[in-house]
Amino acid sequence: MKSSQLFTKTRKEVPADETAKNAQLLIKAGFIYKNMAGVYSLLPLGLRTVNNITQIVREEMNAVGGIEMQSAALQSEEVWAQTRWSDEIVDNWFKTKLKNDTELGLAFTHEEPMTVLMKDYVRSYKDLPAYPYDIRTVFRNELRAKSGILRGREFFWKALYSFSRDQQEHEEFYQMITQSYKNVFNRIGIGDITHFTFASGGTFAKYSHEFQTVCDAGEDKIYISKEKGVAVNEEVFTDEVLRDLGLNKDELEEKTAIEVGNIFSLGTKFSEPLGLAYANESGETEPVYMGSYGIGITRLMGTVAELLSDDKGLVWPENIAPFKAVICRLGSEDAVTQAADKLYDDLQKQGIEVLYDDRDVRPGEKFADADLLGIPHRVVVSAKTVEAGQFEYKERTEESSKMLSEQELKKVLA
Amino acid sequence: MKSSQLFTKTRKEVPADETAKNAQLLIKAGFIYKNMAGVYSLLPLGLRTVNNITQIVREEMNAVGGIEMQSAALQSEEVWAQTRWSDEIVDNWFKTKLKNDTELGLAFTHEEPMTVLMKDYVRSYKDLPAYPYDIRTVFRNELRAKSGILRGREFFWKALYSFSRDQQEHEEFYQMITQSYKNVFNRIGIGDITHFTFASGGTFAKYSHEFQTVCDAGEDKIYISKEKGVAVNEEVFTDEVLRDLGLNKDELEEKTAIEVGNIFSLGTKFSEPLGLAYANESGETEPVYMGSYGIGITRLMGTVAELLSDDKGLVWPENIAPFKAVICRLGSEDAVTQAADKLYDDLQKQGIEVLYDDRDVRPGEKFADADLLGIPHRVVVSAKTVEAGQFEYKERTEESSKMLSEQELKKVLA
Repeated sequence: MKSSQLFTKTRKEVPADETAKNAQLLIKAGFIYKNMAGVYSLLPLGLRTVNNITQIVREEMNAVGGIEMQSAALQSEEVWAQTRWSDEIVDNWFKTKLKNDTELGLAFTHEEPMTVLMKDYVRSYKDLPAYPYDIRTVFRNELRAKSGILRGREFFWKALYSFSRDQQEHEEFYQMITQSYKNVFNRIGIGDITHFTFASGGTFAKYSHEFQTVCDAGEDKIYISKEKGVAVNEEVFTDEVLRDLGLNKDELEEKTAIEVGNIFSLGTKFSEPLGLAYANESGETEPVYMGSYGIGITRLMGTVAELLSDDKGLVWPENIAPFKAVICRLGSEDAVTQAADKLYDDLQKQGIEVLYDDRDVRPGEKFADADLLGIPHRVVVSAKTVEAGQFEYKERTEESSKMLSEQELKKVLA
Repeated sequence: MKSSQLFTKTRKEVPADETAKNAQLLIKAGFIYKNMAGVYSLLPLGLRTVNNITQIVREEMNAVGGIEMQSAALQSEEVWAQTRWSDEIVDNWFKTKLKNDTELGLAFTHEEPMTVLMKDYVRSYKDLPAYPYDIRTVFRNELRAKSGILRGREFFWKALYSFSRDQQEHEEFYQMITQSYKNVFNRIGIGDITHFTFASGGTFAKYSHEFQTVCDAGEDKIYISKEKGVAVNEEVFTDEVLRDLGLNKDELEEKTAIEVGNIFSLGTKFSEPLGLAYANESGETEPVYMGSYGIGITRLMGTVAELLSDDKGLVWPENIAPFKAVICRLGSEDAVTQAADKLYDDLQKQGIEVLYDDRDVRPGEKFADADLLGIPHRVVVSAKTVEAGQFEYKERTEESSKMLSEQELKKVLA
């Protein structure tokens, strides 16, 4: 894409009420736009980054048998009445009304509607297991929304729901998806600081598990055991739990962290009240054994923005960067324009996603913008580089540039 | 994908309140699930079809300079107060509330928020034109919702907003996007029955333009001039308009039609009250000249379901079908399973999207399901075909099958 086509600009100012570092950076770089507290639009650069994260999540969900669908946002009381319709049980519902005054909810998750939906498709043990998942916007009526895109009133997430025959089949899947979550965080570049964390299991299971990324902007406190490769959320940090997990209090490291994913064993908590059952091999009726598995996709973008940025701006890992490379054309002499145009075409033909800064602005502005946007590889085309028959190349994370031949450059970017 | 992985099934029954042919068919075939009147989930087959339509729309929008972003659903009164916040002006708002009782709306379109957003990025004539677009779910609080996915309370659409320097630049783009809309409907397979239609221009322009697809399930009446290649919506079917367009009443054909797309010249209707202006080449401030352009993506899926189905079920054009081919494996002898497995792998390696019906059900059920799903190409692998060293091939739209060699089959599906 050419910068001249991109309608967004980098900005020096952010809205006065925006105090979160992730949102400040992403607004300055033109990745997101703040509509109101907790509500952001994804600008083209932000959407490209989110799409890259989404694609990684999608591949990992498909690899464990997940099948993508798209649930509805509007929710009827009928489906939720027996479980979580009341504002006393769920304190962050957004509710709205049909013209005939029937109250509807805006989905904040989909356990109930997915359970009811599956009743149309599950009859016998042959119909199980099933792993539908959703990648969509959900809504949560947060009392305060001060963490930028780490906690939005509307946000983009992936939610997978597992429907298994029994606890054993469920636990095998739970192990598999645990690994697929680790793959996601590794591929996004935060694997080494994201911890598999024991948390409260709610009314059914003893524990649920969270994936907590160490970051000062987080809202959670966790206690990490490097030796065992696990962590414990403050909410279940008791002597009993430590005994359970064989952890020694003195060897744990306390850290602030962001919950980037969570996985829950639900058992029959939803299938029993909502009547999702199947006939087993002996023809007996059994309730379906369920789990649910979330990853906050916009939250992940915010987490990476918080963690991997520096004083010049964003620093995207290559796998999720909106563009792999940026070409800064300095000057508008014919030879320079031709060389830059040709490089842009060549790289695009190679399948490399490139931002071509073809604007007529000062070199310093182009360099500052390239850094602020956090594009991993920067290539300069100028009268000097054309004369040398080379390209000036710099990585986002390096201080100094070097001259590369066309062949060397294409190898680096391949 | 293997049928055994797909958790949905074809169904004989539909919800009692579902009277629309498009939704009945799509529910029976397992493309959509009805959550409530006007609210449907996209099941895996439906999502695949919607994604294929979306990709065609995206390519055509990008080809005219469109740049994709993602607007927010939640809307603040501040942005809409001067134009359309009141329920007396817009009768299908869904409204909700923050915890502090601030009223929010659910977006039914985005002219206002896009106009306000662009104020952060447009300063001078150099920043224009700009063509951001959204592909997302919007919400409309319809009094009645009886047309299946032709008129949903939440639905998936594409909306592009154009920001131009003046009327001339706007009109050049308007011509271009008119052509890109025609490309979309041609590629989806309904180009020949979709008419460029003059409709009411609302408060600013004399006319807007709709793309109306002839179909008895439609809500609009149009008058088609085959000779001139245009149509007129009943809402502006007056002698004055006919004179304007040089049409002779007697030569027009009256038809019922579905509005699958619309394009509006907005002029400065939004930019003036909301203060979106730019400095022209002489440094004078001018209001930005706007347009907006919608395509109902789930509505398009419903329109194709209504129009191209037959008594056996859905009939998808190849460009949007959830799978290009279905392999029906008949029997489970080793030789048959091996041949079917191999064909499935080979076709996938060729990049052909295949549904592999590996279920242990009667041949008649597999054939009926393949027809109901509307997959364009059907391949049968059975003891008979293995013995003959060939494959049995049938197009969805043909009655009889024929035997093809592996080479012939791959050529047909390429």
